[in-house]
Amino acid sequence: MANSRWTAAAETPPVSLRRRGPVLERAILEAALEQLSTVGWSGLTMEGVASGAQTGKAAVYRRWPSKEDLVADALQSGLPTLDEAADHGSIRQDLFELCRRVRDAMYSRAGFAMRSVLHECDTTTAERFHGVIVRGVIEPSNRLFREVVCRGVTRGDVRADITSELVLDVIPGLMMYRSKVCGSEWPDEDIAEMIDQVMVPLLRPSSG
Amino acid sequence: MANSRWTAAAETPPVSLRRRGPVLERAILEAALEQLSTVGWSGLTMEGVASGAQTGKAAVYRRWPSKEDLVADALQSGLPTLDEAADHGSIRQDLFELCRRVRDAMYSRAGFAMRSVLHECDTTTAERFHGVIVRGVIEPSNRLFREVVCRGVTRGDVRADITSELVLDVIPGLMMYRSKVCGSEWPDEDIAEMIDQVMVPLLRPSSG
Repeated sequence: MANSRWTAAAETPPVSLRRRGPVLERAILEAALEQLSTVGWSGLTMEGVASGAQTGKAAVYRRWPSKEDLVADALQSGLPTLDEAADHGSIRQDLFELCRRVRDAMYSRAGFAMRSVLHECDTTTAERFHGVIVRGVIEPSNRLFREVVCRGVTRGDVRADITSELVLDVIPGLMMYRSKVCGSEWPDEDIAEMIDQVMVPLLRPSSG
Repeated sequence: MANSRWTAAAETPPVSLRRRGPVLERAILEAALEQLSTVGWSGLTMEGVASGAQTGKAAVYRRWPSKEDLVADALQSGLPTLDEAADHGSIRQDLFELCRRVRDAMYSRAGFAMRSVLHECDTTTAERFHGVIVRGVIEPSNRLFREVVCRGVTRGDVRADITSELVLDVIPGLMMYRSKVCGSEWPDEDIAEMIDQVMVPLLRPSSG
């Protein structure tokens, strides 16, 4: 009953809901994330998303030819941006703030949706969404970790002889491992422990 | 055609194939791993395993009431044992040899089968198999990493002030991360780089 009312509304939206361009797109992407959170990848339909966004199915298909395209964009647009790492005056504080932002991205609504989608979809689709994670979280956070470490070398609280990329992978490695194996959601105190007990000893100049 | 011949053979095995106890069990577990490698979790059937082991279906069901039980045991028994870490005289060499063994477990036939099963099966079954990984690889290797680090403290090539468990998770974290994100299969030279560029600087006594 509620369903047919929604469908009718979706096909002929009331004048007050006629949105265009970015506003309508935003509403559709939001509705897609909402659907992922409630009914998951398998339950998500273009019709359901159109209903949720209070628009017509055609408006969705016009922008996204398939469910995969729509979900990829919804996940990407739902992730917090990781575009710069402010200078807090020490490697310790810079890493701490950056890790909190990466943690917030992992546990954002889009982050949760991403993991559940990856578990539900087939291998080919999973590869595409894996690409969204790489471009949306892994690459930008790696770029920022590198920036923060280079800044530490210039400042003098990071040793200058780091040559291995593996050093930059220690934080993302620990975050992934503890999240997957122990179900950790990385509260601030665990991030602080990782910085103080692992990263500071690993990065400090040998005279320190 | 080949199929019906096999099925007939399976139900009434020739006298020369009448094996009992551990020998038959070993053959069934081997056949289950073989099925996982070829047809995957979804394709594996108790009949197929019985055929592969050249025995009857009843012999399989007598030991394992379900496909889940059989596969859990097959995965567990197929993993190389991680029960002790020999003393090679330095933290560097001890960690190197231990990492190679963990890598060999990850890329054993059972290790490959484990990852593909986890991707195919439903969530409840996945939790059970996740337990097999934890008990078969993660817990024993963590115990050995701890042993090797403690031995280093006694020997004097590891600092004595390590208090955080996170230090012990750096290697498994890096191994999981690079395997998942970059598809690394951890050749010896990458293991050596991880030990020399990450673990040795992280663990060395501060006077070093």
